[in-house]
Amino acid sequence: MASDLRGVYAAVLTPFTDTLEPNLKAFVAHCHWLLAHGCDGLAPLGTTGEANSLSVAQRLALIEAAAGGGVPMGKCIFGSGSCALADAVAVTKAAVAAGSGGALLLPPFYYKNPTEDGLFAFFSEVVQRVGDRRLRLYLYHFPQLSTAPITVSLVARLKREYGDTIAGLKDSSGDWQTTATFLKEVPGFGVFSGSEQFLLPNLRAGGVGCISASTNVTAPLARPVYAAWRASEADALQQALTEARLIFQSYPLQAALKEMMAVITGDASWRVLLPPNHSLTMAERAELAARLGALPQMQPVLRAAA
Amino acid sequence: MASDLRGVYAAVLTPFTDTLEPNLKAFVAHCHWLLAHGCDGLAPLGTTGEANSLSVAQRLALIEAAAGGGVPMGKCIFGSGSCALADAVAVTKAAVAAGSGGALLLPPFYYKNPTEDGLFAFFSEVVQRVGDRRLRLYLYHFPQLSTAPITVSLVARLKREYGDTIAGLKDSSGDWQTTATFLKEVPGFGVFSGSEQFLLPNLRAGGVGCISASTNVTAPLARPVYAAWRASEADALQQALTEARLIFQSYPLQAALKEMMAVITGDASWRVLLPPNHSLTMAERAELAARLGALPQMQPVLRAAA
Repeated sequence: MASDLRGVYAAVLTPFTDTLEPNLKAFVAHCHWLLAHGCDGLAPLGTTGEANSLSVAQRLALIEAAAGGGVPMGKCIFGSGSCALADAVAVTKAAVAAGSGGALLLPPFYYKNPTEDGLFAFFSEVVQRVGDRRLRLYLYHFPQLSTAPITVSLVARLKREYGDTIAGLKDSSGDWQTTATFLKEVPGFGVFSGSEQFLLPNLRAGGVGCISASTNVTAPLARPVYAAWRASEADALQQALTEARLIFQSYPLQAALKEMMAVITGDASWRVLLPPNHSLTMAERAELAARLGALPQMQPVLRAAA
Repeated sequence: MASDLRGVYAAVLTPFTDTLEPNLKAFVAHCHWLLAHGCDGLAPLGTTGEANSLSVAQRLALIEAAAGGGVPMGKCIFGSGSCALADAVAVTKAAVAAGSGGALLLPPFYYKNPTEDGLFAFFSEVVQRVGDRRLRLYLYHFPQLSTAPITVSLVARLKREYGDTIAGLKDSSGDWQTTATFLKEVPGFGVFSGSEQFLLPNLRAGGVGCISASTNVTAPLARPVYAAWRASEADALQQALTEARLIFQSYPLQAALKEMMAVITGDASWRVLLPPNHSLTMAERAELAARLGALPQMQPVLRAAA
């Protein structure tokens, strides 16, 4: 059985209180808002969700809040990576127990140049210690931040050992050739592109969708690309989507997205990030709003909350 | 008041059981063994101790075991860094509560290119949330692994705000010029070199000693350098020490040190590392033992357990 999770996913932002605790109620509300505004599914607790800045207890509380708050767990892929094996196991277990569609696992990212044997051992320990056939693991290829690339050869070893448990991959490398190689070399692998910029090429090459930071805001533009990807208008829709994405990624991404959520919802508490991340400067805020506001396709998106 | 912690410190290795749990009893025994074999002090839960591969609960258990096992807390600088603010606060608090001489704090290491404002905010939150005047914080400059350099300008801001709480720094950059710059620009700062290779130059330039991975084994050679650093024979003693260090650092360092502890103590369980780290290959084991065994100054060290 290949992965059946498909479509436009947002790497869900985590809202915080002014004492830097996750705002559970606002988080659940944001999950529902995303599903009502173009998202097919959700990927909370990833890089965008500042999960590595959270304790395990804070991460478990967010999973529990989502499950208890009626967020459809089958549409969720929870980030569950950690440098610490025990932590990665604890969060992955909680995601599976909550009924999540999958877990998105970073490689351990402190020690540099880990060997393939070392990464295989880490992922193997996670799979075996979770010990649940419902587990659908998505490997997280994000070498710019993890410093530990996921290779085709590693994926092949893991799939030989653990089969469908190794369900797919999120490719946040920003390098289309890497995505194309995974799609070619690992048939039936559930490959999400890490940016909606590559949504259309990924679908055309056999990928399953995108899991992106910026779809917290741009999902209403990404959804038509996904819906129409076999049709002739798809290229123009992708172009409109890419224009918005490229504006976001010219700023610190989490801060830019939280800024636009503050603008869209009128809730200034969206501007809180955990250190070392921090909010945009006043000049950046004005510039970002002006640049996005100048795109005709962003007009309905920016009025979404109204 | 400047820092009063000085001398030869080992970045203490963490022994594990075959189920990858910290072996608390063996850890406490190793702490005592190090203090009896040349160490002035101990730095558990650092890079060498594989602390970032451990959960917070496992780290707290190691601190508690050391304190309960009679390890002199005033001679300990516990690593307490984490990407997660809540975790860094929890471990730092536990180290202070146990009466430790200091805490060694990595910057958050997941997000790349953090701003100085972002790092200042992270360290500030730790100091304020720990909220204990006994805290003596040592900043951990290890850009190759943390990817977030500690700058003189950041140290100056922190010292202006928090005074003697910002007690010193461990410089693991391997770049002597960086150490020299900290010593020159921050008078009275407790600067430990991260390798015993720079022990003598560091002492001569006003530094306080070394906190090194390889002093788990080489402390008996490092101690005479520290004792005689003002004397004429210091250079020859440093040379003998450096020869041993350079052999260790031509292998994956934690694995090479655990291998030699297995050889010295006859306890094969020293060869267990947490993934993605792993033990040396058989060929590497033989080569390492042969190279160290060929150094005359290593003969008494390799017989230390007998």
